[in-house]
Amino acid sequence: MNPIKLYNPGPINVSEDTYKAMSTAMIGHRGSDFVNLYEDIHPKLQKIFNTPEPVYLSTSSAWGIMEASIKNLTSKKVLNCCNGAFSDKWLDVSKRCGLNAESLSAEWGSPICPEELDKKLSTNEFDVVTLVHNETSTGVMNPLKEISEIVNKYEDVLLIVDTVSSFSATPINTEDYKIDVVLTGSQKALALPPGLALFTVSEKALKKAETIPNRGYYFDFLEFHKNWKKMMTPSTPCISLLYGLQHQLNKIFNEGIEARYERHQLLNNIVHSWVNDHGFEHFAPDGYRSKSLTCVANNKDIDVPAWIKRMREKHSLIINGGYGKIKGTTFRISNMGDETAESIKHMLEAITDTLP
Amino acid sequence: MNPIKLYNPGPINVSEDTYKAMSTAMIGHRGSDFVNLYEDIHPKLQKIFNTPEPVYLSTSSAWGIMEASIKNLTSKKVLNCCNGAFSDKWLDVSKRCGLNAESLSAEWGSPICPEELDKKLSTNEFDVVTLVHNETSTGVMNPLKEISEIVNKYEDVLLIVDTVSSFSATPINTEDYKIDVVLTGSQKALALPPGLALFTVSEKALKKAETIPNRGYYFDFLEFHKNWKKMMTPSTPCISLLYGLQHQLNKIFNEGIEARYERHQLLNNIVHSWVNDHGFEHFAPDGYRSKSLTCVANNKDIDVPAWIKRMREKHSLIINGGYGKIKGTTFRISNMGDETAESIKHMLEAITDTLP
Repeated sequence: MNPIKLYNPGPINVSEDTYKAMSTAMIGHRGSDFVNLYEDIHPKLQKIFNTPEPVYLSTSSAWGIMEASIKNLTSKKVLNCCNGAFSDKWLDVSKRCGLNAESLSAEWGSPICPEELDKKLSTNEFDVVTLVHNETSTGVMNPLKEISEIVNKYEDVLLIVDTVSSFSATPINTEDYKIDVVLTGSQKALALPPGLALFTVSEKALKKAETIPNRGYYFDFLEFHKNWKKMMTPSTPCISLLYGLQHQLNKIFNEGIEARYERHQLLNNIVHSWVNDHGFEHFAPDGYRSKSLTCVANNKDIDVPAWIKRMREKHSLIINGGYGKIKGTTFRISNMGDETAESIKHMLEAITDTLP
Repeated sequence: MNPIKLYNPGPINVSEDTYKAMSTAMIGHRGSDFVNLYEDIHPKLQKIFNTPEPVYLSTSSAWGIMEASIKNLTSKKVLNCCNGAFSDKWLDVSKRCGLNAESLSAEWGSPICPEELDKKLSTNEFDVVTLVHNETSTGVMNPLKEISEIVNKYEDVLLIVDTVSSFSATPINTEDYKIDVVLTGSQKALALPPGLALFTVSEKALKKAETIPNRGYYFDFLEFHKNWKKMMTPSTPCISLLYGLQHQLNKIFNEGIEARYERHQLLNNIVHSWVNDHGFEHFAPDGYRSKSLTCVANNKDIDVPAWIKRMREKHSLIINGGYGKIKGTTFRISNMGDETAESIKHMLEAITDTLP
């Protein structure tokens, strides 16, 4: 069977050279070999996070750190900004953790409104805000600068941002925007297999965590920080993925981080042109569209699962047929990772060829 | 630089063929490709766990599930059986989770005493017992049958067993011994990279979890169970490691699980002979020694770090120089994973050659 090339918005395709890097001989995680590995990748991660603060390595999916962030930092009430499947679920997870939680909602397909956020925060009920920067389910990229400016008006409120599907595809200005936690996962624009989450925490947030009881161990931010000082991790880390990450970071800086952002913009434009040229519509409004994936409204009432089956069988590749309550009424095309203009055009020809 | 072959008790060496399996083309985790993968590995895992119950896949190190077990199941008080670095730490983690916790301690190097456990449980204070089957720090294998018989006298007490360094090296009789949670990690005898934990939960324990509030999401046992019914996982799983696991399971059943246990016993005997022949002593008492690693008392007052440095430089392999408070006064030799009599003998010649 031919392998199926994934144009899902994650997990995405992993290159042969990345798998080769992941096959580097195993090392112990409590010795100098591991310290050398972490020391090599750490400054590169800081550059992509745009922060002078520590970057921690979590052996988990991003959901582990999404949950950890609210548990480590909330003492009063968390405001979950909800405008898609993943941000909505963050509210659900907040409640499952027994936290006092409330949503600031926008329609799926719309961005979070900074003015409404301001109104909510002015009640002084909240000490934590969660935001999904790039809602993978709807293709909406929320206005991070404007939102962070609102949160920064409130000195005691911490901002947690999920950049799962935007990290390394578009700049994240952690330091400039004074974001307290920025987290991401390995299986999106970094083009690694899933199983690794990366995150950075502000000094202010670490201080806050010190006041939170019963943080547990596995996802305790202060344990990550304590071990980070030795360039280690609290628990045995996913070493092979870290070798893959080292390799991908080298590729990113060989390409140039700005050149990479431009490439993603270009590939994204190519997909957007295809959407317009074929009479489809965007699910997200102009000005708020993701740079790493495109969520397309199925305005022609296509049988999306049948279409995807055809492209899989005929061209050994797939896009995604929509997520959650907009499954089937939307479809999604990723331009993350190691794609080129050529590979994106090839994919678009294949999906065009199999259109009903 | 030559890769250094690891005779640490984990992470251990990963074979080329396993890395190759881990390089299988990426798949989505919410479709039939993933279901097929889980369906293929699940019955094999049940056979090694010796259970008809579900086996869940956690994208984390084993500590994630060690913490999750006590959090999902304790309503009264957890009794942590402590006789080494990892079991001692489980008590610490219980307290960090805000649980009511107490230890049943034995000296490092001694097994947990079933009679003392009986005495503790007869107070009716406890609803959960934790046990590390094979204390990787001391080389002690606790008497699982006797301990489970004691716990089974108390109908409302659940038994959680960490088999991190014994799983697939020696039989674990989950069903016969009525163990409520058995958990393990990927980087020990399964000879995979770290980043994956496997665990099984009894129906009785799942029922208990239903009564525990604020279980969160990432490590919620009921979420694992709900997703297991669809042969999926709550969060994006470490797919490459699961391809590696599929490959290792096939190797295990090609070898034959009984033959594998016998091989580990044989390799363990070879190491034990070396200990005796070279005038060293075992740290663990006769009858309670691990089958997957050997913890050796440094009765000759060797400079262990210097010795390990020599074997690393001259023979490109290492053993481990002891863990926690017995670092330096013990050293540890692993016979886990894909080792053969020949490779173990080669390693023993190399470490003998570099002895002071």
